[in-house]
This record gives sequence, structure tokens and C-alpha cells, in this order.
Amino acid sequence: MTQTYHARIYVTLRPSVLDPAGTAVQSGLKHLGYDNVEGVRIGKYVELTLQAGTAEEAEGQLDRMCDQLLANPVIENYRFELVDAIAPASVSK
Amino acid sequence: MTQTYHARIYVTLRPSVLDPAGTAVQSGLKHLGYDNVEGVRIGKYVELTLQAGTAEEAEGQLDRMCDQLLANPVIENYRFELVDAIAPASVSK
Repeated sequence: MTQTYHARIYVTLRPSVLDPAGTAVQSGLKHLGYDNVEGVRIGKYVELTLQAGTAEEAEGQLDRMCDQLLANPVIENYRFELVDAIAPASVSK
Repeated sequence: MTQTYHARIYVTLRPSVLDPAGTAVQSGLKHLGYDNVEGVRIGKYVELTLQAGTAEEAEGQLDRMCDQLLANPVIENYRFELVDAIAPASVSK
């Protein structure tokens, strides 16, 4: 029997890789008066639902999905977490 | 005296807003054989460091930054968390 798992995946640029989008956002914040902000880095956040027999199986699949499609392992890191398998992953404000 | 706070900000499309990028990723995953995946939604993940007197002050500033620049409140939700104020926010794997 398969279960439904909700996953949250975070894809970030490796620390050694320049992040021009982050630099642009930091500059934008500075222009708005937030000159106390530093080290802005922008990544991707992916939410999805998958069916799997066990949490371990779901994690193995997520690992492969990230390596194959969701992240570019040359320049990006990723991490993910499985959330409550019954209630839908809700994101508020 | 100000303290250093690390923040993680998650920006997601509101549930009522279509997510063509998420649909494309879901289709890509299906073509790779992951036909057990549904509800793919893509958002932004921002990491930054800021100086503030208190955690409350930092949270207030983050709220305003999100409303003014980091998120589009018409179509996006956001949430954020303050991480350990001393050790740098590290993202592994």
C-alpha cells in the first residue's frame, strides 16, 4: 500500500558560486533603506506530493529527482524534508 | 547594541494562482518516470543576514522587506524564520 508524502525541497547555489540575483536584491533593499542587510542569496523552493511505500523510498526518489532535474549538482546544493503525510502542506502568510 | 540575525524567507504562489513552471517540472518528472508526483509548486527561497536590536525588530523589518520587494503580495504568500544568530546559516548537501 502506498502513502502520500508532502515534500519541501530547497535548492541553493553553492557558496562558491556568485549570485547576481542576490546581489541585485541586496542593492534594491539598500535603496529602500535597509542598509543593515547582507549576504542575500536566492534559491528555489519546491513543494510537491508523491506516493511511496515508505518514507525511505520517498526520500530516495526525492534524492534522484533533485540530482536529475530539480537541482544542478555542479553549482547547486539541495536539501528536502518530508512533511505531515496526511494534512496538505499549507503555507500561510 | 545590534545583533546579527540570519533569516530564511519562503515565497510561494498563492494557491489560487496558476504555476506554469511547476506544471513544466511535473511534466519533466513524469517523463523521467516519476509518475507518482503531483502538485508541484515552485517558489523562491531567500537567505540573508541582518543587523537588528531585537528579534522582534528583525521580524518587523523582514515583514516590510517582503511586502515591498521580496514578494508580490497580490499573487504570492511569504513566511520567514530567524535562524541561529551566531553560527552562519549553513546548507548541506
